[in-house]
Amino acid sequence: MQRTAIYPGSFDPVTNGHIDIITRASKIFDKVVVGVLENGAKHPAFTFQERVNMLKVAVAGIPNVDIKSFSGLLVDFVKQEDSSVIIKGMRAVSDFEYEFQMALLNRKLAPDIETIFLATSDKYCFLSSSIVRDIAKHGGSLEDLVPDELIETICEKLGKS
Amino acid sequence: MQRTAIYPGSFDPVTNGHIDIITRASKIFDKVVVGVLENGAKHPAFTFQERVNMLKVAVAGIPNVDIKSFSGLLVDFVKQEDSSVIIKGMRAVSDFEYEFQMALLNRKLAPDIETIFLATSDKYCFLSSSIVRDIAKHGGSLEDLVPDELIETICEKLGKS
Amino acid sequence: MQRTAIYPGSFDPVTNGHIDIITRASKIFDKVVVGVLENGAKHPAFTFQERVNMLKVAVAGIPNVDIKSFSGLLVDFVKQEDSSVIIKGMRAVSDFEYEFQMALLNRKLAPDIETIFLATSDKYCFLSSSIVRDIAKHGGSLEDLVPDELIETICEKLGKS
Amino acid sequence: MQRTAIYPGSFDPVTNGHIDIITRASKIFDKVVVGVLENGAKHPAFTFQERVNMLKVAVAGIPNVDIKSFSGLLVDFVKQEDSSVIIKGMRAVSDFEYEFQMALLNRKLAPDIETIFLATSDKYCFLSSSIVRDIAKHGGSLEDLVPDELIETICEKLGKS
Amino acid sequence: MQRTAIYPGSFDPVTNGHIDIITRASKIFDKVVVGVLENGAKHPAFTFQERVNMLKVAVAGIPNVDIKSFSGLLVDFVKQEDSSVIIKGMRAVSDFEYEFQMALLNRKLAPDIETIFLATSDKYCFLSSSIVRDIAKHGGSLEDLVPDELIETICEKLGKS
Amino acid sequence: MQRTAIYPGSFDPVTNGHIDIITRASKIFDKVVVGVLENGAKHPAFTFQERVNMLKVAVAGIPNVDIKSFSGLLVDFVKQEDSSVIIKGMRAVSDFEYEFQMALLNRKLAPDIETIFLATSDKYCFLSSSIVRDIAKHGGSLEDLVPDELIETICEKLGKS
Repeated sequence: MQRTAIYPGSFDPVTNGHIDIITRASKIFDKVVVGVLENGAKHPAFTFQERVNMLKVAVAGIPNVDIKSFSGLLVDFVKQEDSSVIIKGMRAVSDFEYEFQMALLNRKLAPDIETIFLATSDKYCFLSSSIVRDIAKHGGSLEDLVPDELIETICEKLGKS
Repeated sequence: MQRTAIYPGSFDPVTNGHIDIITRASKIFDKVVVGVLENGAKHPAFTFQERVNMLKVAVAGIPNVDIKSFSGLLVDFVKQEDSSVIIKGMRAVSDFEYEFQMALLNRKLAPDIETIFLATSDKYCFLSSSIVRDIAKHGGSLEDLVPDELIETICEKLGKS
Repeated sequence: MQRTAIYPGSFDPVTNGHIDIITRASKIFDKVVVGVLENGAKHPAFTFQERVNMLKVAVAGIPNVDIKSFSGLLVDFVKQEDSSVIIKGMRAVSDFEYEFQMALLNRKLAPDIETIFLATSDKYCFLSSSIVRDIAKHGGSLEDLVPDELIETICEKLGKS
Repeated sequence: MQRTAIYPGSFDPVTNGHIDIITRASKIFDKVVVGVLENGAKHPAFTFQERVNMLKVAVAGIPNVDIKSFSGLLVDFVKQEDSSVIIKGMRAVSDFEYEFQMALLNRKLAPDIETIFLATSDKYCFLSSSIVRDIAKHGGSLEDLVPDELIETICEKLGKS
Repeated sequence: MQRTAIYPGSFDPVTNGHIDIITRASKIFDKVVVGVLENGAKHPAFTFQERVNMLKVAVAGIPNVDIKSFSGLLVDFVKQEDSSVIIKGMRAVSDFEYEFQMALLNRKLAPDIETIFLATSDKYCFLSSSIVRDIAKHGGSLEDLVPDELIETICEKLGKS
Repeated sequence: MQRTAIYPGSFDPVTNGHIDIITRASKIFDKVVVGVLENGAKHPAFTFQERVNMLKVAVAGIPNVDIKSFSGLLVDFVKQEDSSVIIKGMRAVSDFEYEFQMALLNRKLAPDIETIFLATSDKYCFLSSSIVRDIAKHGGSLEDLVPDELIETICEKLGKS
């Protein structure tokens, strides 16, 4: 029996915290599908295609990870992928309550789908996409915050000129 | 001595979580006045009149509940209604800190007015107006989330066409 | 219709935070019954009788407050008093999660009984019985922490000799 | 590749909340090993053997669940079972912070072992072993709180006589 | 050795909670530099210059406090001021998690810079700039919420006309 | 003007998390006095003298740190040391609420004494004395958890024999 887990998000942009969760989930499940929410935020800093491309670069080395997009209810996307598991990263310093609420809601909408939480590595517990954008915008260093091969792309798009 | 309690909110739209609190408050107090905040959110999904009408439909069966509107400071509305009690629902998964802050602020503004909190039923602890809007927008089922008699109205206004 | 609310606790000893909640509850309800848990803690600092006596002194000025004892399930005591409302104080800095859990449990055990929470005054949000015991034990001042007329009693029992 | 997950605890006694997590985990993993901590609490209400026996009765209907005991570090037990996944239930009203701390600690002690969290069903979010013991001790009803076939055993051991 | 601490914020407008923290920090450090974030919020209620002027009025009586502006990364401003300490106020009812995340991030960006947190006085634990704006907009009293000498300025700009 | 800060605790035993806070505090203040609470816990794993000795070994390399003991109210010890600042470490995963309560209490007892909080390094956010004791008892590795020169001492006292 092949087990597929879905890891949803906006990834605007992907951070090392996301990659940490994807890597670890890829060891627990046979396949991990990263679901990029097409129109989550009103005005994403990166276009949908840029966000997908950055993720593809970042997970190139992990064989059992796919990058896909979705735009409706998460539970519909999970079913469509023949999966029954949603993965969420949780930071010690985090939106725990929000994620918990979403997990309960999703169980209500689709009782057969489980949300499982992984604790983000302590070294990434301060990290989020919005913090990465903020640092890039002010010309700070993104080293250790996003995958090395994406630093230039992100800084070019967001950095001071 | 007649005791009136005020239950304020935007109700954009009313959910079963709200109805749960209103029903329970109506058993503790002689009268419950639901105060609909006229201009709370910048861009409510439903007009003020729609939000009031939905509430009226939803509480039609509870004799000691009134629906009214207000637009200024909550404590001024409470005094105007000859009440001294504000009711707030609190979800296990919730904005507890925000509500607490508001309660302390309101005591500072009007020391004679009390805020009392009721614990939302566990089965509604994932529920909020914004979640209802989100599900309706993506064509998910609103059953058990809002009063049955409002499902069609909400889906028509917010659903995919 | 007379409305009675139950305010349960160990009161080992009663603090000004408790008195604050009792006073405010006495304005919302026709009668407030303070329920002293006879055998809550394993080794209370004060005997059951001492705790009751201190409470009686402390609320002597509030006409609609009674002091009673109970020893079983709280919901059984509430029913026995012909009440359907439990009052709990909640401190900004607090055991919110524990109290919430108890409220949900009590609704499960007795669906007709409501728990309502009052926000403890900001000036008492650091205060608890165990803190009072700790200060008394080390000879610190209890002024503003417990009712004036109890300071001597508490210090004599707990203070350094 | 067979995937085994470990669900550790004291189970003093097992509750419906535990059974909920075990059932759901048994659908995500090929095998779930419930690890009963032999000497976790100083003075458990039930002996180690009683706790194991109750679990065996409770999970008799789930084919891919085993009950085992352990007494040292959790990560050592996980390795010994050829597993790399620890399952923890998390209640909306919960010891989230403690569990998170344990997850980070266990990653430090054994980086290859993952802790994954499942959100406890909303209807069990008030439930814990200590609450069950408390209710049983005071003669309250355990219906819906523990598996039906254990109610008598638990009440006999803990109930008023 | 002179020790300078930086107290950053938007101060839109300054509240008595801010003044409380500034006053207390001025007793721990030789110099406190209040750093006004020039373009933090998208649409501040007060212009940058108004926010600076109000702060200058409010701290006029404290000799070792300077008001300055900054617009990039906070850690760059701290270095530029030859400081290595960031001061943050923390309310019992607060955005603790957010502040903690920022502190960890800033340590990552600049390991030699420390963030230290002071507990806001209990009497200000409900207070924030947005609450002050809200009250002023609805014609409520700002007494005890902002420095007396600023009440008129704030009400004129934000109040009902 | 010489500024002394007090860092109180039981240190049963000292961990790398404590040393991290002491080191950082020693850069902010002219002198740091580590105050070892003589009789905090009922049954400490290490005797008072052992706890003091371990601390002395651990901070030997930091010139402006003193190790002292105290047994009464913390604020009395702070005054006796001619200090007005208490240092507390705060973990992302932490007893924040408890520490906050203590800070407010101590301000009530001694308004001139400030409590300042430092955010514990992310890599120590899972660490506490009780976790160290637990690992040592079960023969786990203490590397990176306590100072290297104390590992043998701790394991000898607490480890399996």
